[in-house]
Amino acid sequence: MARLVMKFGGTSVANVERIRNVALHVKREADEGHQVAVVVSAMAGKTNELVAWCKEASELHDQREYDAIVASGEQVTAGLLAVALQKIGIPARSWLGWQIPILTSGAHGSARIQSIDGAPLVRGFERGEVAVIAGFQGIHQPTGRITTLGRGGSDTSAVAVAAAIHADRCDIYTDVDGVYTTDPRVVPKARRMERISFEEMLEMASLGAKVLQVRSVEVAMVHKVRTFVRSSFDDPARPNSGTLICNEEDIVEAQIVTGIAFSRDEAQITLRGVADKPGVAAAVFVPLAEAGVNVDMIVQVASSDSMTDMTFTVPAAEFEHARAILEKSKPSIGYASLAGAKDVAKVSAIGIGMRSHAGVAARAFKALADKGVNIRAITTSEIKFSVLIDEAYTELAVRTLHSLYGLDAA
Amino acid sequence: MARLVMKFGGTSVANVERIRNVALHVKREADEGHQVAVVVSAMAGKTNELVAWCKEASELHDQREYDAIVASGEQVTAGLLAVALQKIGIPARSWLGWQIPILTSGAHGSARIQSIDGAPLVRGFERGEVAVIAGFQGIHQPTGRITTLGRGGSDTSAVAVAAAIHADRCDIYTDVDGVYTTDPRVVPKARRMERISFEEMLEMASLGAKVLQVRSVEVAMVHKVRTFVRSSFDDPARPNSGTLICNEEDIVEAQIVTGIAFSRDEAQITLRGVADKPGVAAAVFVPLAEAGVNVDMIVQVASSDSMTDMTFTVPAAEFEHARAILEKSKPSIGYASLAGAKDVAKVSAIGIGMRSHAGVAARAFKALADKGVNIRAITTSEIKFSVLIDEAYTELAVRTLHSLYGLDAA
Repeated sequence: MARLVMKFGGTSVANVERIRNVALHVKREADEGHQVAVVVSAMAGKTNELVAWCKEASELHDQREYDAIVASGEQVTAGLLAVALQKIGIPARSWLGWQIPILTSGAHGSARIQSIDGAPLVRGFERGEVAVIAGFQGIHQPTGRITTLGRGGSDTSAVAVAAAIHADRCDIYTDVDGVYTTDPRVVPKARRMERISFEEMLEMASLGAKVLQVRSVEVAMVHKVRTFVRSSFDDPARPNSGTLICNEEDIVEAQIVTGIAFSRDEAQITLRGVADKPGVAAAVFVPLAEAGVNVDMIVQVASSDSMTDMTFTVPAAEFEHARAILEKSKPSIGYASLAGAKDVAKVSAIGIGMRSHAGVAARAFKALADKGVNIRAITTSEIKFSVLIDEAYTELAVRTLHSLYGLDAA
Repeated sequence: MARLVMKFGGTSVANVERIRNVALHVKREADEGHQVAVVVSAMAGKTNELVAWCKEASELHDQREYDAIVASGEQVTAGLLAVALQKIGIPARSWLGWQIPILTSGAHGSARIQSIDGAPLVRGFERGEVAVIAGFQGIHQPTGRITTLGRGGSDTSAVAVAAAIHADRCDIYTDVDGVYTTDPRVVPKARRMERISFEEMLEMASLGAKVLQVRSVEVAMVHKVRTFVRSSFDDPARPNSGTLICNEEDIVEAQIVTGIAFSRDEAQITLRGVADKPGVAAAVFVPLAEAGVNVDMIVQVASSDSMTDMTFTVPAAEFEHARAILEKSKPSIGYASLAGAKDVAKVSAIGIGMRSHAGVAARAFKALADKGVNIRAITTSEIKFSVLIDEAYTELAVRTLHSLYGLDAA
């Protein structure tokens, strides 16, 4: 007998028929004698509907009310799945965030889980009950108000519940059957990985692979939760095992490069003719940070005596906001001109093997140059490197790197 | 400064635009300096959608899960109205049943309110906040599970909150502008009443007038909550006052008959050839009661020596169920034949003046006979009488009685 958490996202519970199919997956595990906690998202489209109403009521809405409104989506799914499970003979009950409770910070709209009381869930297991938990939500004390964890937060709910009840594993069911070396829609030769380390998965998720919320990977890594990414659209009677996210030590032979991620949600900003003196970087980046703009790749090139050009990227959605801030800060920064581009993409290669291999990125620069791909900026870290390129070259660059590092399926 | 409760039903909050209109009604009262608690229903259609999903998941669903699912509808409206109020400069916050808390019995799906802690709401008033309360819901302790009060339960939530916070009045906003002498769709000459006594309103609601949930009138009567029924579709700046439901003493000149109610949701069952001996009524009605079938009008007529015919009504929706029970109980009851009819209607006249006037019902029997309306059964009580007739004669009978008792508008 094992104890496990199963998490199902919005497309897996999009309607009652699919919720019934999810119930069959849960039944399979319960019939094995396992103790099961299920974490569910809102039915696909529901959260968007609720958010749209909220915005229609007021563009600048109270985040506490927003949380009370949108958390209702997961409440519905949890109840429906409990009913569907009972229907097929599996004792089950729904749990809302405040009922367990899942205590969070007071940062409404993007709260962080602080603690989860696993005891009521475990008592339920002892009564033979499956616990069906509304994902994405918690409660803040002492205010007693409902909080939500931000988009994709149900992944984090699942992993955090798994840590709280000391689950043997956490299965994240999604609409793909695992983690791929890159997006199979761009590279048909992409392969599903059997295993990926927490560190690599964290980079993949941060760099654009949308299979898991970044925070859920952090929580899994810290609490060493064995996490599988697998498909809810498999036959419930004969599912595939998916991709295991595990400790680096559990990966026998580390690839140099494990996967290629990419993101088109980037925008590039270049400040030309910036004085090359101490304090300039602070003058540029402090106002952006204070406005909540996430700055990513930063490159600085001396262009002439005592002058420099500064290039960096921001999320595409924050481009206009960032530009307005920089124009306002022009006197304090002192630059000659500001140029921006939204038609850029970031392509990244990730692999723990990079730590012990030199020249991994250099091979990529040559391969991309050979294909005529112009590199606008480069950043590297211990286990990944990223290049910023013209958006039109995204697929070409991804395919080039995927082949270069031997990731193509035979 | 007064303290008041305003309740808005599903059609009044059917979309965000209407919720904004509701916010204007609330603003009018808040601008007068009043302390305001608002109770809201789910957006029109939402509860039906949630119930349908629940049934699709399982015909025989766990009522506790049903409650968790359907209570989400009011949660959404409460949050949206709080946001809409803040948008127009009125401080407001939403309150869910478990947050106040509104404690109820454990009868999931039709729970009864046991107590409401008014203190957190009053503290909110002292901070200058409007309290926006999700109607229809509460929490059962010690289970900690969400309960709902049954269809129309938000009316009861509103009146019970008004009692708990010692409100000066409770305004029930609906899609009509008050309580009418009968349904204006059937009798165009129906008049809106300025006042109606709790007792009369209770009978009207019980006998088919759908303007208020019966239980809400009971609670208002017990706690002497001055309750107005009024329209949410009035101009928020110049609303009409609606109908006041009040103590009998506050009605200066009692009418003999105040209103005519009717219901087509009736079915008639007749058992012929029943032995006229002690214990037979119990043999008929105990099995029905145990199955939860509500029996209403009961008439027994001796048909021959030691034999009798027994006629009674049940809700149309329970007709088949009741028939099946009676056929199963045939040996223990001992009847010759069972006849049933679903094309019947109950028409009732209500008025506290009946207490002091004899012959009120007799005039009706004659007037109906003059119009050729056949009366299948009659029941009377202190302040009302009801006749069961063929459904096709419903409008004719209602109009006849409405004229007979001088209720037609000039």
